[in-house]
Amino acid sequence: MKRYEQPDFQQAMRIRLDVNHMMQECVGEKGLCKADLQAPCYQKAAERAHAKRAQWAFCHLPEDAVLTQIETMAAQIRRQCEAFVVFGIGGSALGPMAVHQALQHLHYNELPAEKRGGPRFYVEDNVDPERMAALLDVIDPGKTCFNVITKSGSTSETMAQMMILTRLLKDRGLDVAEHVIATTDAEKGNLIQIAKRLGLRTLYVPSDLGGRFSELSPVGLLSAAVCGIDIREMVAGAAFMDTRLQSQDVWENMAYLEGAMQMECMRRGRNIAVMMPYADSLKLMADWYAQLWAESLGKRYNWQGDVVAVGQTPVKALGVTDQHSQVQLYVEGPDDKVVTFIGVDAYRAQVPIPLEYEQIPDVAFLGGHSLNELIAAELFATGYALAKAGKPNKTIFLPEVNAFTIGQLLYFFEMATAYAGEVLDINAFDQPGVEGGKQATYALLGKPGFEVKKQEMDAAPKGKDAYRLA
Amino acid sequence: MKRYEQPDFQQAMRIRLDVNHMMQECVGEKGLCKADLQAPCYQKAAERAHAKRAQWAFCHLPEDAVLTQIETMAAQIRRQCEAFVVFGIGGSALGPMAVHQALQHLHYNELPAEKRGGPRFYVEDNVDPERMAALLDVIDPGKTCFNVITKSGSTSETMAQMMILTRLLKDRGLDVAEHVIATTDAEKGNLIQIAKRLGLRTLYVPSDLGGRFSELSPVGLLSAAVCGIDIREMVAGAAFMDTRLQSQDVWENMAYLEGAMQMECMRRGRNIAVMMPYADSLKLMADWYAQLWAESLGKRYNWQGDVVAVGQTPVKALGVTDQHSQVQLYVEGPDDKVVTFIGVDAYRAQVPIPLEYEQIPDVAFLGGHSLNELIAAELFATGYALAKAGKPNKTIFLPEVNAFTIGQLLYFFEMATAYAGEVLDINAFDQPGVEGGKQATYALLGKPGFEVKKQEMDAAPKGKDAYRLA
Repeated sequence: MKRYEQPDFQQAMRIRLDVNHMMQECVGEKGLCKADLQAPCYQKAAERAHAKRAQWAFCHLPEDAVLTQIETMAAQIRRQCEAFVVFGIGGSALGPMAVHQALQHLHYNELPAEKRGGPRFYVEDNVDPERMAALLDVIDPGKTCFNVITKSGSTSETMAQMMILTRLLKDRGLDVAEHVIATTDAEKGNLIQIAKRLGLRTLYVPSDLGGRFSELSPVGLLSAAVCGIDIREMVAGAAFMDTRLQSQDVWENMAYLEGAMQMECMRRGRNIAVMMPYADSLKLMADWYAQLWAESLGKRYNWQGDVVAVGQTPVKALGVTDQHSQVQLYVEGPDDKVVTFIGVDAYRAQVPIPLEYEQIPDVAFLGGHSLNELIAAELFATGYALAKAGKPNKTIFLPEVNAFTIGQLLYFFEMATAYAGEVLDINAFDQPGVEGGKQATYALLGKPGFEVKKQEMDAAPKGKDAYRLA
Repeated sequence: MKRYEQPDFQQAMRIRLDVNHMMQECVGEKGLCKADLQAPCYQKAAERAHAKRAQWAFCHLPEDAVLTQIETMAAQIRRQCEAFVVFGIGGSALGPMAVHQALQHLHYNELPAEKRGGPRFYVEDNVDPERMAALLDVIDPGKTCFNVITKSGSTSETMAQMMILTRLLKDRGLDVAEHVIATTDAEKGNLIQIAKRLGLRTLYVPSDLGGRFSELSPVGLLSAAVCGIDIREMVAGAAFMDTRLQSQDVWENMAYLEGAMQMECMRRGRNIAVMMPYADSLKLMADWYAQLWAESLGKRYNWQGDVVAVGQTPVKALGVTDQHSQVQLYVEGPDDKVVTFIGVDAYRAQVPIPLEYEQIPDVAFLGGHSLNELIAAELFATGYALAKAGKPNKTIFLPEVNAFTIGQLLYFFEMATAYAGEVLDINAFDQPGVEGGKQATYALLGKPGFEVKKQEMDAAPKGKDAYRLA
């Protein structure tokens, strides 16, 4: 029996949400009271969420056969490759990076191969030419597996990378089919066409699953497995969280409570959502969350077609680091934000602070403690200081950072986001606002069919030189 | 004659600010008009800034003797060490990381030593025990130089690192004086005491220079020089920018214009400042800026002691990457932000997109272009799409990313921040709001003198279990 199947392990590894510092009892009049979250809008959203859940694609976790396919593919890559490169952007990149950072060594690529046990790992989520050149300086394409991820196969950035890669492999006499794995829609789009023609190995993204909700699908799970992460434990963590999110009472459902609190704060003018993990391993989890929250909830229209122009702007921070960068603003600045900390009960290393410099009391008091105690004290102290200044904040606690707790955390945020979409009565699963920029790019690059857009752009105001300072 | 002394080079390398997309001509009624920025508050702030500049510490760039000292020290480290580690946090870390990322290879530490030409480079700006353990997995302390940076010598995080390091070196029979360089105040504080006692090599931070304004001082310049960056060119870039910022007319002074536009937007409800470079090399520049802007301008009191609780929240983004994460919100969400792009005219690599997959027009149109064209088109397209949606945005252009343009950029932002402080009539150079959290940490760790604080904390509301979901 795997540890994640054992009830004791599951209980010990429950992630927790402490919202005391959101409440009037702790932060005074700017806090919430229990009844605020029991308002009809939150109850109705809970009912709607409950009714819709069965149709939400992210609630359908991958089946055993898919996991086995991924594990088999990953085992082969671990044996054969020196490097594993993801070409993808947005939802195809942020999840893989966040999970890798959470569950692998913080200097993974710098470890000797035998300590890593798997290939070096790169996620290329930009088209900066310097970055592509830099990648090619540190990998040997002949010993590298490339995972090209785009559900639609029409993502310009990823397809440009695929074109460059194809030519590079061919120029070196290498077989594209041997070096490239395509993760894409099973039927529709350009990448599946290419994959079939070239005979690439493929993994399929469920057609109704959006990029930002796809970490617990082949999109995220292949790279995790390649890096030696137990993907069944991750999925089990998500499934466990699902069982914990069955109540329609926001006070008994931590994802609904999370969504409701954020939305209630937004309604009161807190248009900024700070996500501040106290662990370097969780730093990129804030980036993953930032996409999920921003792109799902930043919407101009509600389901009825009314202009609502809603959305709370996620801000990524890192504890304790950003205490020395952002916390001055959080404590003294406007009442425009909610701060969510992520704390860890047990770090995977224990580092004592020795007794040194005992003649300097201003320093010596740290001796005999540990970095573990210091970071925990600073998390508590920062939440306390914010609460004392009347600034609402809350903390998600992970008993430790492992595949099971990360699976829970991902699913928790996904559900909180989908629920918040119900509160706002918007479609949390589309992103129509990015079309304008895409079309303008197509027009500039001469894509057939965008001639009218090009004309529109040519006719737009060109601006004045007086407004260009040089 | 060095290139940065040549007028032709200086002219060609002028960084530029294009604010057309901030103006009504381009974004419609939600834009600004020229006269808005000529309001008395902005003119008076310009006058005050002008009068105060001579006293602002960041305006005093390091003298030749200091640069020579840093260069000599760096040359020795480059010869002797395999790794160079900065122990510092906030202003002692963000500048060094941003400049390294901007001016060095994107996979610097993974390059073979002969390609790097200098030691591997690490900045340790957190007290996460997992991070300290991970660092020790990849460095050999006997072949490493540690630069401990804290002006006051009372930064708990850095001093804890120093204590751990001291013990580690002693336990291995290594000489602390040989392996540690202290960058600190010349006279005051704990670190200078320790440095004198142990005979450490030292560099001095000017006593009136705050951490977030200290990149162009020994704080930032030693690590830059150790990594092979021409620090004289950086400083020359800053000095050149200073000559460009002499006008008191905001329309002739790009730093004042930057500050005035941000403050005018803030006044109109845009409490979020997005900084979005279109270059991986500039990604961490957004982190450096985030500290500068947040900690300088997020203030509860103005100079008269009135409660103002001002501050614009910086948000870090990366183009094109975050088009697939944040731009949906920027385009469709509330009118609560200003987006500032950073563009690069000439990247340091040229990557063509070959003609491939010509049977698929949806992909093939990219062939024959280059990643350089693609990223430039996406920058333009995103600014255009935002403007078309009525969302103000502006772009800072760097002709290329080099030490001279980075020096300009750092100084430009510092002056824009100091000027914005004058607009708000606040002290942009202190950070009183972090004291509460520090004191609470001291109390928790039993630092002598914080017994009363501990009592206060013990007496504070403990919160309810009903507000802890588990």
